[in-house]
Amino acid sequence: MASLPECTALLLRREESRLYVTINRPEVKNALNKDVTEGLEAVAEYVENDPTVRSVIVRGSEGTFCAGGDIKGFKKSFETPPPEEGADDPIATGNRSFGDFLIRFNNLPATTIGVIEGAAFGGGLGLTCVFDVTICMADTKFALSETGLGVVPAQIAPFVVQRLGLTTARRIALTGARFDGKHAFEIGLVHFLVNDAEELEETLKKVLKGITRCAPRANAATKKILMATTHRPIEQVLDDGSKAFAAQLRGEEGREGVEAFLEKRKAAWVEKIE
Amino acid sequence: MASLPECTALLLRREESRLYVTINRPEVKNALNKDVTEGLEAVAEYVENDPTVRSVIVRGSEGTFCAGGDIKGFKKSFETPPPEEGADDPIATGNRSFGDFLIRFNNLPATTIGVIEGAAFGGGLGLTCVFDVTICMADTKFALSETGLGVVPAQIAPFVVQRLGLTTARRIALTGARFDGKHAFEIGLVHFLVNDAEELEETLKKVLKGITRCAPRANAATKKILMATTHRPIEQVLDDGSKAFAAQLRGEEGREGVEAFLEKRKAAWVEKIE
Amino acid sequence: MASLPECTALLLRREESRLYVTINRPEVKNALNKDVTEGLEAVAEYVENDPTVRSVIVRGSEGTFCAGGDIKGFKKSFETPPPEEGADDPIATGNRSFGDFLIRFNNLPATTIGVIEGAAFGGGLGLTCVFDVTICMADTKFALSETGLGVVPAQIAPFVVQRLGLTTARRIALTGARFDGKHAFEIGLVHFLVNDAEELEETLKKVLKGITRCAPRANAATKKILMATTHRPIEQVLDDGSKAFAAQLRGEEGREGVEAFLEKRKAAWVEKIE
Repeated sequence: MASLPECTALLLRREESRLYVTINRPEVKNALNKDVTEGLEAVAEYVENDPTVRSVIVRGSEGTFCAGGDIKGFKKSFETPPPEEGADDPIATGNRSFGDFLIRFNNLPATTIGVIEGAAFGGGLGLTCVFDVTICMADTKFALSETGLGVVPAQIAPFVVQRLGLTTARRIALTGARFDGKHAFEIGLVHFLVNDAEELEETLKKVLKGITRCAPRANAATKKILMATTHRPIEQVLDDGSKAFAAQLRGEEGREGVEAFLEKRKAAWVEKIE
Repeated sequence: MASLPECTALLLRREESRLYVTINRPEVKNALNKDVTEGLEAVAEYVENDPTVRSVIVRGSEGTFCAGGDIKGFKKSFETPPPEEGADDPIATGNRSFGDFLIRFNNLPATTIGVIEGAAFGGGLGLTCVFDVTICMADTKFALSETGLGVVPAQIAPFVVQRLGLTTARRIALTGARFDGKHAFEIGLVHFLVNDAEELEETLKKVLKGITRCAPRANAATKKILMATTHRPIEQVLDDGSKAFAAQLRGEEGREGVEAFLEKRKAAWVEKIE
Repeated sequence: MASLPECTALLLRREESRLYVTINRPEVKNALNKDVTEGLEAVAEYVENDPTVRSVIVRGSEGTFCAGGDIKGFKKSFETPPPEEGADDPIATGNRSFGDFLIRFNNLPATTIGVIEGAAFGGGLGLTCVFDVTICMADTKFALSETGLGVVPAQIAPFVVQRLGLTTARRIALTGARFDGKHAFEIGLVHFLVNDAEELEETLKKVLKGITRCAPRANAATKKILMATTHRPIEQVLDDGSKAFAAQLRGEEGREGVEAFLEKRKAAWVEKIE
């Protein structure tokens, strides 16, 4: 097990197969800046290289998930001169890198869980769209706030469409919609709706228990297949899937899983979670 | 501001940034015919060329949205002789043009709102699928009525799938389903369900207010990005999006939006709607 | 009308335009094995070649739809030696054939109805995803059970995503989720939720009546258009659709449908269902 990355804007904690990540800029409601996104990139790197990480739990410090982008940072950008003809635009390049990060996080081999409390605006709402499982407090406030600021939700738009469908994405993006956790649950932005901290922790524990019932490599292979359906022809997804199936069935996990089932016992990979 | 197009089958009214369109063939429950679709094409042309139009509100006259296609017109088609080998078929060509219209309307740069009352059958249901926001009376009657008439919902099918997903589209298309506004809301065909005229106008006003909170060009650019996700690879959507982001942030709207936010005042583009 | 295929693991019954199929391995809760899938392939062959079949109703014997794959069969696979370099892997090939079957069944020209009772695990859940209409008992148990067995839902994954969307597919696949019919209804896996046998039969009859209101060839052509939207560019779908529209309108069904409508009588294709 490699040591955890050092991140100035994140708190990290490892417990067995679980990695807990807390965005830690409470003074600005955990708004995304370079420190946060670089930290999350380091987390992605760590998880991609350590197959013993089976779940990644992400939340914000002090009861707020993420208030969005760094609006004071936007103001500084006004002074960035436009690029010369043919040169790269540093504003576009900086913006584009958040899209690459979201693609990467969307495809992490571990199962990812977002715990959404307080607020998820702009980029925070975008981040909410790339977790495998999302647990949300009913009173969380959501908004795709970009167009109200005169800018566009450029890098998060495809992930919002992937999560909510085009119909809902159009409505919330073009009408400056502000909504709460209950509505987020109704439109499918989040999976579990909870009303207080106790219910939140119980739901999280239940989800984590569910994840440990799944064989680790089988889960990673399944996620890869599911994500491939978004951009590859079905025949190719099925071809690759059939090879993954054979590899899993012949491998250690398939043997253990089938034997455990027939012997009516828990498989070796099931963890106890207190 | 260009003058409004002349349309025999539509009533048009412009109020500030809002264009109100009423399909006006009450004697046939606003069934679609050439006059209606040519009128809507003229509306699209007008909106595409006038960036001061920020919202387009479409409804039907006398409490009925649109009873579908022109079935008596279908009858005349029986006498249209099949085309000669290799020639275009006027029935196919006429049908196909409705699909082109729906693509165009689906991509209008302004934010579009459908107000659905009374009935939306066949092509009327198809049109319901291409608005950004849809407000619906609970007792509205819906049906994909084509297969009951021995024909196919050929041009609207892709938009029905885009709006409802394949699962629901299959069910309602293949079982001759007739359903009301309440069910339309449950399956995601419409966004807001209202019970009477007063609630309808209040909801419409709230949606229009939300739209004016969004910067006009930012909204148009956002809609372009969202629609691109339906047919372009995500990397290209993100590339183009990052350029749109930089242009908006450096432009007038970005500056005004960020300054208004930091100064805790309304941005210049917010309109008062009585 | 060709005679029904002989299938050792299926019970088949034809009534007018309806084909009733019962998976009949109650001793193993109708688990999928070669006999079942070969039987269903024979059913597909029959339906593809007999346009008088307008609906196919599939259920499991003795109140259980399908308990999934053949886990004892999995155990035997451990002894299958890996293929030599460059040779086909019989485990992958066998697995892949289930994906081909699901593509075929998903695209049957008749309208398909699944009646889901008792349990639908693994492949049984996959099969649930390819019906045009699904009726489900509220107490049915569902699970994507593969990863708990150390393997992957390789062949069913694309169909689960097609039915439930990526968001829900990720959650249920990666958390070992076990859920009931009520939740299946909420996430859109099934269309109609029923509480007892009587309600089930009434709902089925209503759906079958709806199907016979639709012109048979019009329904088959509509399904073809809907399925094409999943993998073809919209312009091509609309082009092909316009030809199908012209063929239907000029054909027997268009004439009969339009005339029946204008004469306010039932079209010739409407069947009486007791």
